[in-house]
Amino acid sequence: MSASNRRVLLKSRPQGEPTPANFDIVEAPIPEPGEGEYLARTVWLSLDPYMRGRMAEAKGYAANVNLGDPMVGGTVSQVIKSRHPGFKDGDFVADYAGWQSYSVSNGAGAIKLDPQAAPLSAALSVLGMPGMTAWWGLMQIGKPKAGETVVVSAASGAVGSVVGQLAKLHGCRAVGIAGGKEKCDYVVKELGFDACVDYRAAGGNLFKEIRAAAPKGIDVYFENVGGAVQAAVVPQLNDFARVPLCGLISQYNEMQMSPGPDWRLLLIKRATVTGFIVSDHFADMAGFWKEVPPAVKAGRIKYREDIVNGIENAPEAFIGLLKGRNFGKLLVQVSDDPTRR
Amino acid sequence: MSASNRRVLLKSRPQGEPTPANFDIVEAPIPEPGEGEYLARTVWLSLDPYMRGRMAEAKGYAANVNLGDPMVGGTVSQVIKSRHPGFKDGDFVADYAGWQSYSVSNGAGAIKLDPQAAPLSAALSVLGMPGMTAWWGLMQIGKPKAGETVVVSAASGAVGSVVGQLAKLHGCRAVGIAGGKEKCDYVVKELGFDACVDYRAAGGNLFKEIRAAAPKGIDVYFENVGGAVQAAVVPQLNDFARVPLCGLISQYNEMQMSPGPDWRLLLIKRATVTGFIVSDHFADMAGFWKEVPPAVKAGRIKYREDIVNGIENAPEAFIGLLKGRNFGKLLVQVSDDPTRR
Repeated sequence: MSASNRRVLLKSRPQGEPTPANFDIVEAPIPEPGEGEYLARTVWLSLDPYMRGRMAEAKGYAANVNLGDPMVGGTVSQVIKSRHPGFKDGDFVADYAGWQSYSVSNGAGAIKLDPQAAPLSAALSVLGMPGMTAWWGLMQIGKPKAGETVVVSAASGAVGSVVGQLAKLHGCRAVGIAGGKEKCDYVVKELGFDACVDYRAAGGNLFKEIRAAAPKGIDVYFENVGGAVQAAVVPQLNDFARVPLCGLISQYNEMQMSPGPDWRLLLIKRATVTGFIVSDHFADMAGFWKEVPPAVKAGRIKYREDIVNGIENAPEAFIGLLKGRNFGKLLVQVSDDPTRR
Repeated sequence: MSASNRRVLLKSRPQGEPTPANFDIVEAPIPEPGEGEYLARTVWLSLDPYMRGRMAEAKGYAANVNLGDPMVGGTVSQVIKSRHPGFKDGDFVADYAGWQSYSVSNGAGAIKLDPQAAPLSAALSVLGMPGMTAWWGLMQIGKPKAGETVVVSAASGAVGSVVGQLAKLHGCRAVGIAGGKEKCDYVVKELGFDACVDYRAAGGNLFKEIRAAAPKGIDVYFENVGGAVQAAVVPQLNDFARVPLCGLISQYNEMQMSPGPDWRLLLIKRATVTGFIVSDHFADMAGFWKEVPPAVKAGRIKYREDIVNGIENAPEAFIGLLKGRNFGKLLVQVSDDPTRR
């Protein structure tokens, strides 16, 4: 650990793909906690596709990052100097410290973690926002019934991997779509999906390969990517299909609107497309807590982490995330995790 | 009445817009009812946009019409020769006799009408399929809350007119979109909508004119038309907007898929688009029967009929319907309605 607070600031707004020049890496003094606050060092930083939206000027669904401010993000931190009655030195918390190695907090929104219960980093993946996203979208919007076919794009990712495993636990055929043989092999052999289509290898045969993997059509399409995958999937929806619309990562860097499917396809199939953002539903996660942590503990839901070391490497890792270069939940290890020694 | 059965058959499948050459008008013998059947003369024939889909070869959501068969359609008929124990001569029924002046039925799907309760033709508009479509889409999918803004396209039509009036009855701001000043005046002055945008006059200002009519954004968009209206409305959806997707009349004649909105617009707003077809829900219309007929009787829901005389004029009227030429529910009067004398 350095004796300064290393922070990644938003320097300029990307036009299209973000580049390293959009970020500023600065060293600042380590802040002092006031009365009722604590100082924490960041252990884990989560990198997620939604951050692309926060870099934009255009109105998104949450407050965007101001130029010169640190990038926002979910973190696991360890309290190192507490002047807050609810937190003591050594406590681990899941919070939103952003892209910086130290932060001061009044505790709002911070959740204490029990390092005995699960690895700390899981609070940023399967037991945190991505896991809740998967559960909410699949169970509350997708409403899968045993015997139905669930297709999920970005299937090896933090959200998609949980979607497919939950679908299997509920008796569905789970079909992933992912980029590259390695990811597809992982999705089928490690996670237990019934099939996985490699959209990069498929090229112009994407529609046919999805059809072969989902021969009875698609009842639930969990949408993470948009673009060419969306165009190939939507015509294969079954009557009364549900489409939890979670993300459109292939379109986040696009400067212009890009066309979606002809709504005649949705009308004829009486399909439902529902955009959702998990933070709207954090207060209603009883079902998630009941179902997912025990399944993780029992090994029925597996997860994979893609770890980058050092906060100074966050920009490049994030740029890669938008291109699908990560394999598993992308995390930055900002400082030592004493529970992993 | 002629002494033969005048029938309109599907002669060929339209490529793009239907033309009179796609139809064959033939005279056939009046059929004889067998035991357990009745012969009825068609009084009213309903012309509806969905019929365009039935003319196509491509798989739609219901069985398409075979070449050489009569066009399908909802009708009000009078029994003139019954050999069915449940129907007697003189009874009026709502049935699906199609585009012909006489039909024989075994009574399946026929509903007896009480001519004292409402005009017979209302069974084909506000008290029939179009009214149920409006009610189901608005109330079950749109779920309007008092104070919200409901926008409906094809606002002067059989469905749209009921949508807006129901929205008003539920305390919403009702904004119509229709083609031409006459229709817009009717929607506002007769039906009591708060505003109506004339999409034909608006041209390139359509987005702005809709914004002016719905200054707080759009909570429910009842979609009947697609195309340019859809493109102008979707970016104005509010957070958690609901879109009952009922029809896309502007696209029915298109041979190619046409692009829909970028799904980023749905994601950011957490909007829900739900395609629906009323016939899936006929068994679940208790709420409709409770709400709509009394409102019609009390004059709180008004309706307008656009009547064409003679079944031989049905093809031209139907072609005009797809271009928005009708003004109100389009009906063909096939034979005398004794209750209207």
